[in-house]
Amino acid sequence: MRKKWAVMGLAASALLAFPFSAFAADEVTATTVQTNLDTFFVFLAFALVLFMQAGFAFLEAGSVRMKNAGHVAGKTILTLGIALVAFWAFGFGLGFGDGNGFFGYQGFFLSGEEMKPLFGALSGLDIPISMMFLFHLAFAAVSLSIAFGGFAERAKLSVYIIFGVLFMIIIYPIIAHWVWGGGWLAAIGMQDYAGSTVVHLTGATAGLAATLMLKPRLGKYNKDGKPNIIPGHNQVFSVIGVFILWFGWMGFNPGSALTPSGGFFTYVALTTNLAAAAGGIAALLISWVVLGKGDIPSMLNGVLAALVAITGSCAFVDVWAAVVIGLVAGVVTFFTAQWFEKAGVDDPIYAFSVHGIAGMWGAISTGLFATPELAKQVNVGGAGLFYGGGFHQLGVQLLGMIGTFIFVLVLSFIILGIMKALGGIRVTEEEEMMGLDISEHGSYGYPEQMRALGEVDRSKANS
Amino acid sequence: MRKKWAVMGLAASALLAFPFSAFAADEVTATTVQTNLDTFFVFLAFALVLFMQAGFAFLEAGSVRMKNAGHVAGKTILTLGIALVAFWAFGFGLGFGDGNGFFGYQGFFLSGEEMKPLFGALSGLDIPISMMFLFHLAFAAVSLSIAFGGFAERAKLSVYIIFGVLFMIIIYPIIAHWVWGGGWLAAIGMQDYAGSTVVHLTGATAGLAATLMLKPRLGKYNKDGKPNIIPGHNQVFSVIGVFILWFGWMGFNPGSALTPSGGFFTYVALTTNLAAAAGGIAALLISWVVLGKGDIPSMLNGVLAALVAITGSCAFVDVWAAVVIGLVAGVVTFFTAQWFEKAGVDDPIYAFSVHGIAGMWGAISTGLFATPELAKQVNVGGAGLFYGGGFHQLGVQLLGMIGTFIFVLVLSFIILGIMKALGGIRVTEEEEMMGLDISEHGSYGYPEQMRALGEVDRSKANS
Amino acid sequence: MRKKWAVMGLAASALLAFPFSAFAADEVTATTVQTNLDTFFVFLAFALVLFMQAGFAFLEAGSVRMKNAGHVAGKTILTLGIALVAFWAFGFGLGFGDGNGFFGYQGFFLSGEEMKPLFGALSGLDIPISMMFLFHLAFAAVSLSIAFGGFAERAKLSVYIIFGVLFMIIIYPIIAHWVWGGGWLAAIGMQDYAGSTVVHLTGATAGLAATLMLKPRLGKYNKDGKPNIIPGHNQVFSVIGVFILWFGWMGFNPGSALTPSGGFFTYVALTTNLAAAAGGIAALLISWVVLGKGDIPSMLNGVLAALVAITGSCAFVDVWAAVVIGLVAGVVTFFTAQWFEKAGVDDPIYAFSVHGIAGMWGAISTGLFATPELAKQVNVGGAGLFYGGGFHQLGVQLLGMIGTFIFVLVLSFIILGIMKALGGIRVTEEEEMMGLDISEHGSYGYPEQMRALGEVDRSKANS
Repeated sequence: MRKKWAVMGLAASALLAFPFSAFAADEVTATTVQTNLDTFFVFLAFALVLFMQAGFAFLEAGSVRMKNAGHVAGKTILTLGIALVAFWAFGFGLGFGDGNGFFGYQGFFLSGEEMKPLFGALSGLDIPISMMFLFHLAFAAVSLSIAFGGFAERAKLSVYIIFGVLFMIIIYPIIAHWVWGGGWLAAIGMQDYAGSTVVHLTGATAGLAATLMLKPRLGKYNKDGKPNIIPGHNQVFSVIGVFILWFGWMGFNPGSALTPSGGFFTYVALTTNLAAAAGGIAALLISWVVLGKGDIPSMLNGVLAALVAITGSCAFVDVWAAVVIGLVAGVVTFFTAQWFEKAGVDDPIYAFSVHGIAGMWGAISTGLFATPELAKQVNVGGAGLFYGGGFHQLGVQLLGMIGTFIFVLVLSFIILGIMKALGGIRVTEEEEMMGLDISEHGSYGYPEQMRALGEVDRSKANS
Repeated sequence: MRKKWAVMGLAASALLAFPFSAFAADEVTATTVQTNLDTFFVFLAFALVLFMQAGFAFLEAGSVRMKNAGHVAGKTILTLGIALVAFWAFGFGLGFGDGNGFFGYQGFFLSGEEMKPLFGALSGLDIPISMMFLFHLAFAAVSLSIAFGGFAERAKLSVYIIFGVLFMIIIYPIIAHWVWGGGWLAAIGMQDYAGSTVVHLTGATAGLAATLMLKPRLGKYNKDGKPNIIPGHNQVFSVIGVFILWFGWMGFNPGSALTPSGGFFTYVALTTNLAAAAGGIAALLISWVVLGKGDIPSMLNGVLAALVAITGSCAFVDVWAAVVIGLVAGVVTFFTAQWFEKAGVDDPIYAFSVHGIAGMWGAISTGLFATPELAKQVNVGGAGLFYGGGFHQLGVQLLGMIGTFIFVLVLSFIILGIMKALGGIRVTEEEEMMGLDISEHGSYGYPEQMRALGEVDRSKANS
Repeated sequence: MRKKWAVMGLAASALLAFPFSAFAADEVTATTVQTNLDTFFVFLAFALVLFMQAGFAFLEAGSVRMKNAGHVAGKTILTLGIALVAFWAFGFGLGFGDGNGFFGYQGFFLSGEEMKPLFGALSGLDIPISMMFLFHLAFAAVSLSIAFGGFAERAKLSVYIIFGVLFMIIIYPIIAHWVWGGGWLAAIGMQDYAGSTVVHLTGATAGLAATLMLKPRLGKYNKDGKPNIIPGHNQVFSVIGVFILWFGWMGFNPGSALTPSGGFFTYVALTTNLAAAAGGIAALLISWVVLGKGDIPSMLNGVLAALVAITGSCAFVDVWAAVVIGLVAGVVTFFTAQWFEKAGVDDPIYAFSVHGIAGMWGAISTGLFATPELAKQVNVGGAGLFYGGGFHQLGVQLLGMIGTFIFVLVLSFIILGIMKALGGIRVTEEEEMMGLDISEHGSYGYPEQMRALGEVDRSKANS
């Protein structure tokens, strides 16, 4: 259980010294080998979650128009770069450093007096702080990529940079501290195994704030308020993006066990995969019933929504419950996506439906389905409503969910509001028409294909 | 050797209890650490094989026309979803549950009296059943994706769903049981390390049945029977698909060792990679000689055919033999692909040549090249014809190969024949002309590129 | 430290025997489990580095024009095939076999008297030779893919084959032997943890020789010598290519620790990721200042250049120094790329700027920033100029860098010069105009999109 650990002040010298003392150990015991194995296990999980950025880049690029595709993909690289530096400098210390119930205040730049995480002391695991930083960084970067979904096709490049830094050093760390860093939600036993709330709801809520403040894209709504469909330009990209995310989720959820000991992580992998399957099938079928055709983007959203929902509950629920959680996520996301669109909320890649609504459902679902045995096993919270736990755990989950939603929404509105007042956050109409590839970066992502579309004349796009 | 193990009746409660008892163990011994390592090893192999679905999506989407690309990629997600649920519910129990020589009949929904696999008892490995399920599920899903190659560009979406379920709960499990679940082919010592026969030939034969029953695509053959080339729309996708498959094959073959103990899996990785290289080079060169140019799709097929062939024999043959097996696979597949096309069999992505013919060659090749030392090491069957084993092992391999081919072909014909009689399996001519993206899903995968092609007018495809 | 080990004559029988003796061991001790873990660790690193080929295929295909994309992607498969066979036959023995200070001469075809590498004896690790071969093969193949960047859009397919073989059996192995195989640079303590010099500078220098000998692409320069921009056709591909390379680099650098023991590899992962982030951000910002827009290809080059530079120094420098090394790499590469273009060197995918200049900076950077503690930890060389080491280590680094550059440049010129004299290395003007997809392979990579562009009439490209 990685929820309650904190960096209790790290020293730069200690950081360097730490691995070497262990490395220098010349006695090989079962315990040292297990520590090496745990470290390697977390490393693989980190690498898989890092790779999810490629999934977001594909999914988002495929879901926008050709004139914005280079921009949307490219800014994902920028996102990861900003996330790494900002989380190293401040975010990790605020999120996981020792502090109060609201935020941490030690371990900036991975430096301080003492580098062995509290977590290690609690669990008996002995994973180096550099590894734990990278693991949590990868989760934080996913949250930021989710947030940026709500900015798509109309926000200025500079907005990504400034908001990205602030998200990584304020918004995400505080929520992470509440639930995983020994904060107030940890204290009351909120169950969020791999981050339905911490990662997905946080990112999606920031994205919702941006969606609302940026206003709909040009041409999205007619004068009578009826929405037009603005299809993404490449479903193959979106499909591959979902596969990469699914693959990366094998680090996200099972990896959150932090050790292969006892094989519990394989149970997490089982619930995660079955939920994903159920969500995809359910969304495809419901779209078939409602729209008359099996809609591919709806199916993709169904898979992702199910993965988001099971992320928090994967370690707390029975296998059959995981299937139900995935099914419900797939269906609910389909309807909420439609509802938001009709309500005038133009969320181009469905960031809030897929990560926000399903993230909320993930928080609620453990309050309903958590079994007493699994809650005890993970050692967080208690049984859910359907397993004899009454309304207690459900209440905790709702409190954490609502607290996260309100805090992130308000803070994001404040940050974006200030940015809007100072310099504006949206490109001009002319820039939006020509596309953000040109307006923000000076070159088309697809120069030859834009020429084929007649958007650019031959001499300009290519020699 | 993972061939002979069976789920001897699993209890839902036992499934939940199992990892925890192990997890709760507070004594860390070399043996428990090795078990944790083995479990993690199989997990990585599973994740890599799962990711192969992204490879199939890219390869197949790149190999079809733009009007069908969204459909072809998207249905791969559906394939994985169906595979997971159906294999969890019934397929795994039928394939690996305790039963008779033909199929198993315990362990449905991973439940039953006893969850520790027979395999564990035999081998000393102690990998949780949830992990073994996911590992085998990933293999089964690959087989289904291969099968669906034969359906490309003309089968209805509903056919994928219905046939997919039946393939996962009847066709694949039975063959898997025969060879890997303690069935009659296991009893006579058939060598199929990672599934040239079980996975590839099974999938490809089902695909062949579909190819034959669906008939060629519109425009594939002239009135005089001469084939037209219908090139895929994106070779870059196909190339990346092959790379992802190659990467995933590092889980497929080496992962089938189920443990890193003794490093034997690295030998499997060596034979696998050398065979792939030899197959790609051979196919490129033979295409250069025959066609006058080094043909890229032929080279890609050569790599895949070599990987398919070495899948069964990777653990049984010398390094030099692996190179020969790959070379032969690359060359044979090139000629059979041409031959099938001329014979009127329109297999759009060469599923039967690459996975079927090469799968047969994989089965035969161990009967020729298996060394006595390696057969003893893996503990399945004996030496091949060229290593003093006479015709015995070759006969076993031929029996298994022919038995698999006939069984799967007949069963697939029956299933597809009933489906054809009840509701039809092919889209209408009009639908095929407009493409399956529109006919089956209601939207183009590439709305803007289709507009650039003049296939769709501006107002319809995009705002 | 994997720098100093050599294959001391391998026997084919020994190769087969080795894993089995270990596999047969029935006693499980902490030491055997650690060996199994180390082997698995290197296997994952190998798989990740192997997958980098998909990154190169995407990056390079995205960086060229549509008419060459199938060719550029497809030849990457060929590259890997050639690399595997040639390195197995000769390259590995020349690079890592026992020999003199210049090259090895044992272990061809992984055969010889004794298969346990010297490395194992030195370090206490006991990784099978088949694993070490694959690990080094993956690095060598990366070097070759880098070299081929300099050949893009104008070299004949046959040139790739012939030069590829010679690179893999002469050029790369000799440099690898110098630094990692116990050669003269190893003897004087050159620090190159994962190959800024051995892999990146070697490949990039061979690519530079090709770039210079092939001359610029048609239309790149006006008559007055001013360069025209020839943009790549797909920035999304390039972005995903960089993500895959970043993911693969998690095998490249941390994997070079060869063991998870002591967690030192996690420190390497930390410096590697922070450098990459710093390089990407720096390059984006500098392009914004200089060009007026945040240029995506420049940012991608910045990430890659930083990764290249930190590859050699990742294990030798403090965290803050890693950030500086990345920043400098990002900025320097931006300016050198511009400078080369203006100087008449047409390097279509910036192979020499990204891998050559940054590779040199990587070699220099450890001479400046290596700390005494880390140099001792890795057990190669001493402290850098800024850490009290004086000019000694810097001198060693400069000697290694210059020696590598000159040796590879001269040898590449000789090889390419002979090839040019015998049969020519560049396609004809007419072939270059129509594109290498058609000229070298006989079919477009994008038949339908080329039709949309008006480059091909309907009847030819598609039925």
